[in-house]
Amino acid sequence: MIKVGIVGGTGYTGVELLRLLALHPQVSLRVITSRADAGTAVSQMFPSLRGFVDLLFVHPDEAHLEQCDLVFFATPNGIAMQQARVLLDAGVRVIDLAAEFRLQDITSWEKWYGMTHACPDLVAEAVYGLPEINREQIKSARLIANPGCYPTAVQLGFLPLLEAGVIEVGSLIADAKSGVSGAGRKAEIPALFAEAGDNFKAYGVAGHRHLPEIRQGLAFVTGGDVGLTFVPHLTPLIRGIHATLYGKLTRDVDLQALFEQRYSNEPFVDVLPAGSHPETRSVRGSNRCRLAVHRPQGGDTVVVLSVIDNLVKGAAGQAVQNMNIMFDLPENTALNIVPLLP
Amino acid sequence: MIKVGIVGGTGYTGVELLRLLALHPQVSLRVITSRADAGTAVSQMFPSLRGFVDLLFVHPDEAHLEQCDLVFFATPNGIAMQQARVLLDAGVRVIDLAAEFRLQDITSWEKWYGMTHACPDLVAEAVYGLPEINREQIKSARLIANPGCYPTAVQLGFLPLLEAGVIEVGSLIADAKSGVSGAGRKAEIPALFAEAGDNFKAYGVAGHRHLPEIRQGLAFVTGGDVGLTFVPHLTPLIRGIHATLYGKLTRDVDLQALFEQRYSNEPFVDVLPAGSHPETRSVRGSNRCRLAVHRPQGGDTVVVLSVIDNLVKGAAGQAVQNMNIMFDLPENTALNIVPLLP
Amino acid sequence: MIKVGIVGGTGYTGVELLRLLALHPQVSLRVITSRADAGTAVSQMFPSLRGFVDLLFVHPDEAHLEQCDLVFFATPNGIAMQQARVLLDAGVRVIDLAAEFRLQDITSWEKWYGMTHACPDLVAEAVYGLPEINREQIKSARLIANPGCYPTAVQLGFLPLLEAGVIEVGSLIADAKSGVSGAGRKAEIPALFAEAGDNFKAYGVAGHRHLPEIRQGLAFVTGGDVGLTFVPHLTPLIRGIHATLYGKLTRDVDLQALFEQRYSNEPFVDVLPAGSHPETRSVRGSNRCRLAVHRPQGGDTVVVLSVIDNLVKGAAGQAVQNMNIMFDLPENTALNIVPLLP
Amino acid sequence: MIKVGIVGGTGYTGVELLRLLALHPQVSLRVITSRADAGTAVSQMFPSLRGFVDLLFVHPDEAHLEQCDLVFFATPNGIAMQQARVLLDAGVRVIDLAAEFRLQDITSWEKWYGMTHACPDLVAEAVYGLPEINREQIKSARLIANPGCYPTAVQLGFLPLLEAGVIEVGSLIADAKSGVSGAGRKAEIPALFAEAGDNFKAYGVAGHRHLPEIRQGLAFVTGGDVGLTFVPHLTPLIRGIHATLYGKLTRDVDLQALFEQRYSNEPFVDVLPAGSHPETRSVRGSNRCRLAVHRPQGGDTVVVLSVIDNLVKGAAGQAVQNMNIMFDLPENTALNIVPLLP
Repeated sequence: MIKVGIVGGTGYTGVELLRLLALHPQVSLRVITSRADAGTAVSQMFPSLRGFVDLLFVHPDEAHLEQCDLVFFATPNGIAMQQARVLLDAGVRVIDLAAEFRLQDITSWEKWYGMTHACPDLVAEAVYGLPEINREQIKSARLIANPGCYPTAVQLGFLPLLEAGVIEVGSLIADAKSGVSGAGRKAEIPALFAEAGDNFKAYGVAGHRHLPEIRQGLAFVTGGDVGLTFVPHLTPLIRGIHATLYGKLTRDVDLQALFEQRYSNEPFVDVLPAGSHPETRSVRGSNRCRLAVHRPQGGDTVVVLSVIDNLVKGAAGQAVQNMNIMFDLPENTALNIVPLLP
Repeated sequence: MIKVGIVGGTGYTGVELLRLLALHPQVSLRVITSRADAGTAVSQMFPSLRGFVDLLFVHPDEAHLEQCDLVFFATPNGIAMQQARVLLDAGVRVIDLAAEFRLQDITSWEKWYGMTHACPDLVAEAVYGLPEINREQIKSARLIANPGCYPTAVQLGFLPLLEAGVIEVGSLIADAKSGVSGAGRKAEIPALFAEAGDNFKAYGVAGHRHLPEIRQGLAFVTGGDVGLTFVPHLTPLIRGIHATLYGKLTRDVDLQALFEQRYSNEPFVDVLPAGSHPETRSVRGSNRCRLAVHRPQGGDTVVVLSVIDNLVKGAAGQAVQNMNIMFDLPENTALNIVPLLP
Repeated sequence: MIKVGIVGGTGYTGVELLRLLALHPQVSLRVITSRADAGTAVSQMFPSLRGFVDLLFVHPDEAHLEQCDLVFFATPNGIAMQQARVLLDAGVRVIDLAAEFRLQDITSWEKWYGMTHACPDLVAEAVYGLPEINREQIKSARLIANPGCYPTAVQLGFLPLLEAGVIEVGSLIADAKSGVSGAGRKAEIPALFAEAGDNFKAYGVAGHRHLPEIRQGLAFVTGGDVGLTFVPHLTPLIRGIHATLYGKLTRDVDLQALFEQRYSNEPFVDVLPAGSHPETRSVRGSNRCRLAVHRPQGGDTVVVLSVIDNLVKGAAGQAVQNMNIMFDLPENTALNIVPLLP
Repeated sequence: MIKVGIVGGTGYTGVELLRLLALHPQVSLRVITSRADAGTAVSQMFPSLRGFVDLLFVHPDEAHLEQCDLVFFATPNGIAMQQARVLLDAGVRVIDLAAEFRLQDITSWEKWYGMTHACPDLVAEAVYGLPEINREQIKSARLIANPGCYPTAVQLGFLPLLEAGVIEVGSLIADAKSGVSGAGRKAEIPALFAEAGDNFKAYGVAGHRHLPEIRQGLAFVTGGDVGLTFVPHLTPLIRGIHATLYGKLTRDVDLQALFEQRYSNEPFVDVLPAGSHPETRSVRGSNRCRLAVHRPQGGDTVVVLSVIDNLVKGAAGQAVQNMNIMFDLPENTALNIVPLLP
């Protein structure tokens, strides 16, 4: 059994980790920390967990995380980078669901996240936890930077095209739409039901923190800089990201075959039949990414539609997938979930 | 392995049965029928099932249902009563998710459902599939009348009070609110997003088909007629029923203890701590019923709050629970699901 | 022109007042205060008002409210009672949309609202601003206690029955459902889209602040105490209250005629034809209350369905209606609005 | 008073026309037709209109539309083209809210709409009713082709850029998101609450009927063909379209000034301050289009955000705006509406 700890279990990625780990046959959930809610039963805050999780939230100082085999950080940015080294030194493996270890360019990270990085050297060691790219490195990693939600949906959609070199890399467009849970479980007015409900808007058009992460990921594939316009939007659903991706074809290619071949062995990437339109609900609660590729009116613009559940493949599910890989378990352990539809 | 067939797999109870049965370790899903969609892949209609269900819909005439051990009817009213006898005679056990075998009073059934009953004698044999009442009879039943969604939520809430004889039986009130999936996957204007969204209304105040079913169930407990006012409402959520139940106490009693004791051995009924307010999302996608009991301001009115997922404990999940009981399997097989929150 | 000031214009009742007053032909909107947002353009916070309201939020200390003819308080509880006397002394009339002047029993108010009342004597003078009861007193009032949203929907529904003396007054039940805007524009986790969306729950079953207000209003009609069980629920819509009311008939009566006669001259109360089910969206954005009365199965339980828009007839619209009465204007001035459907 | 008739008043554009016209001071609403619902009171189908519209639906054969000054067609495609000539010959002016007179290329129209056009010569006469382009022609038009919802949002966003000639015309992208009311009040499964709720998807990527309409409109401005990729999406809100538009700048230009100048005299187009993100709710129920223009990271991609209420500026409101222009009334008569927020 893998002894697991979770730091910061009161947010949406935290409760989602608990949902998945509660039924994981190889996981012994040891400790969940919360500074503000120490002493509260987890199932009191999240009644959905009644009968599945018996733990209380524990103050970080009393968590004894060093006794775990693996610790997930489901914390706001700025926490994991303070605590990761001690854990790693104690032999604990770490998966960070926040952004601290995602950007190799520390300067860029500090600019976008507005803080000084506490451990730049660990960034160099961290493995970017997108299994479809880095499965081998993940196996032996001590420290995983779990990808962001938008970056997961966007990278999986562009990957086959960029690897095959069939689109212009200088003028990519990612028009992405996210459910409101992506904003986290934070008391903020724009995320209120009466604000975000029955409403649709773009945000962060001038620049969003996930932009450099996506660019880094895509540049890793192309071997050089990419030009990307990334426009995120907020849509009134709880879970789900739909990324609509646009690229300019540089040569003729069987797009459907390209995508199917690229992902033929990927357990969590599903390429839909030609002409399909994936729906966010078709992955609700599951770790799948579903993709469709179009070439409207046979022109030179390729359109990729990519959907994930932002809390699963975009966060907690991908983290569990990474854990399974790290501990040499079947990759879909505890992730063999039929999406909830309707 | 239990050889299972589903008649009428294109509605919401059908897809929900598929979601649950696809991961049931003792079930071999043999056939799913649909007159209108024969030949279509199930996963084309419900992309959530891609990778889990490989079957095509089959025309009823070619379904060979008699080769199954168990057949679920997830059909509109009027179908199961035409086909049940042949199956039973062939040794197939039947669970009907429609209403044909729920009311023992055939005259009443014919009045409320507006058709002539095709096999009144089978009604007498049918076991009402509410395990919390009829677990023993279910074990050996050939034919199960799976309860309606409202009746499940309402009966589980009133049961402890009526069994203990602590409320007036002549003036019960059930104010129930249902998500829109309760109306089924039918092309009807009132169920459109632009009609049912951002809207709340009562319906069927003059009389709803679930009223006689609830009355029959409660009368079974009290041993005599009950007086019940039942007002259903439509609320803009997809899944979930919240029943708010009112009764007049006839004597002092420890209500919390009463409820906890009644359901202490029930795997799918969860009595919340005193003072709680169960939320529909706390059971989303799961087979639980969560209950709370209140006595506002210490008066003589008892208020019970009861939530279920109408498609699970209110339909497909309860059907699987009944199947597990009938085939002597652990009752939570394939039903050990953490609710999806948020 | 009536010179109008608004104290606390950044909440939902504030922006709703602005929506209505912006097109009121007899109102000159002079000043809107906000301590936190002084200096910000109103239309920057609420882009819906661009082109209609050019004012900036002003700090209370610089508002010169005493120069107004009328001041609306759209503030949290505890503000109006501090400031009302000075304004009244200066000859300004006051409409308080908060709860400070609603309960004549100061002890009860202090218990339910958890603070000491600053001006009990003004409470005695204040007129409860439900025009369907108090139209005459409103005309000459200096100080209006604008009713709460639940109390408006519940009182209008029970009124005809209690005035006619046809139901038991000791066992009334009000099962009420509110949209999330009723919780105000406050950064609180339970009101987040990802918490309140796709979810339904009761709250405050043990006791809600609107309970004593409703009881007081009903007792005023009956001339004695009433027994009322009041259960509020949160439903995932932005605007709207649906109150389902239950009473026990004490004698036979033509309920439809009773309701139609009672409200025949009321411009904002609409009694629907027999057998109707009012929908919240049928009053969205308007000052109407729509009612239907039922007697299910001809029994002795009467069921009244009452819908309002909580921000209009339940708050800002009723306040404008009161203003119109106070200033001898046609009662529907600026309130002649067709509800927004769909 | 303008004598007005409406053909096909039972859909969402019909009830929206009624909402607006009911309070229009210069309109006398004479007749509303419905083949299926003749004899039914309009306010029975749409209770929001109780107290505002007293008419019954009338069978088309008994409508005497030739006695009107103006007839709106709020019908499915294929009706107006059958009836327009008779009305025009009788001196009645016509505004068609369907698509029959929008495309000047009859062959294209017949391909996209799958029927033979009944009166190609009238198409040549029809004026495309986008006042921001064709105000002068609208004044004297007998027959108006009221624009589609997507085309309105997209054209108003691209117009300033194309008129100024500052973007490449061969690679435009319009990523558009629509509320579900855009699908009309039709009983179809994909528009059910349980299908479209809590879900997001693209549709019609291979080709949507509004594509040729948008291309025609943009080509009219540029004087030559444009290359446009148009991807519509369905988002779970009732009303609203958000179009996110992408173009490649060909030269440096003050984008903010360009947009502000282009629309400085337009009563229903509002250019937001630089850096803004318009929300669909900021135009809910109103005839405004709100725009923002961005140049992310100072690159050569321009991003325009354009929001309208699809039922108002995208349909009924624009039709009333056209009527006001045709009858020489102030353009905002009956359209001076503050958007409903929240």
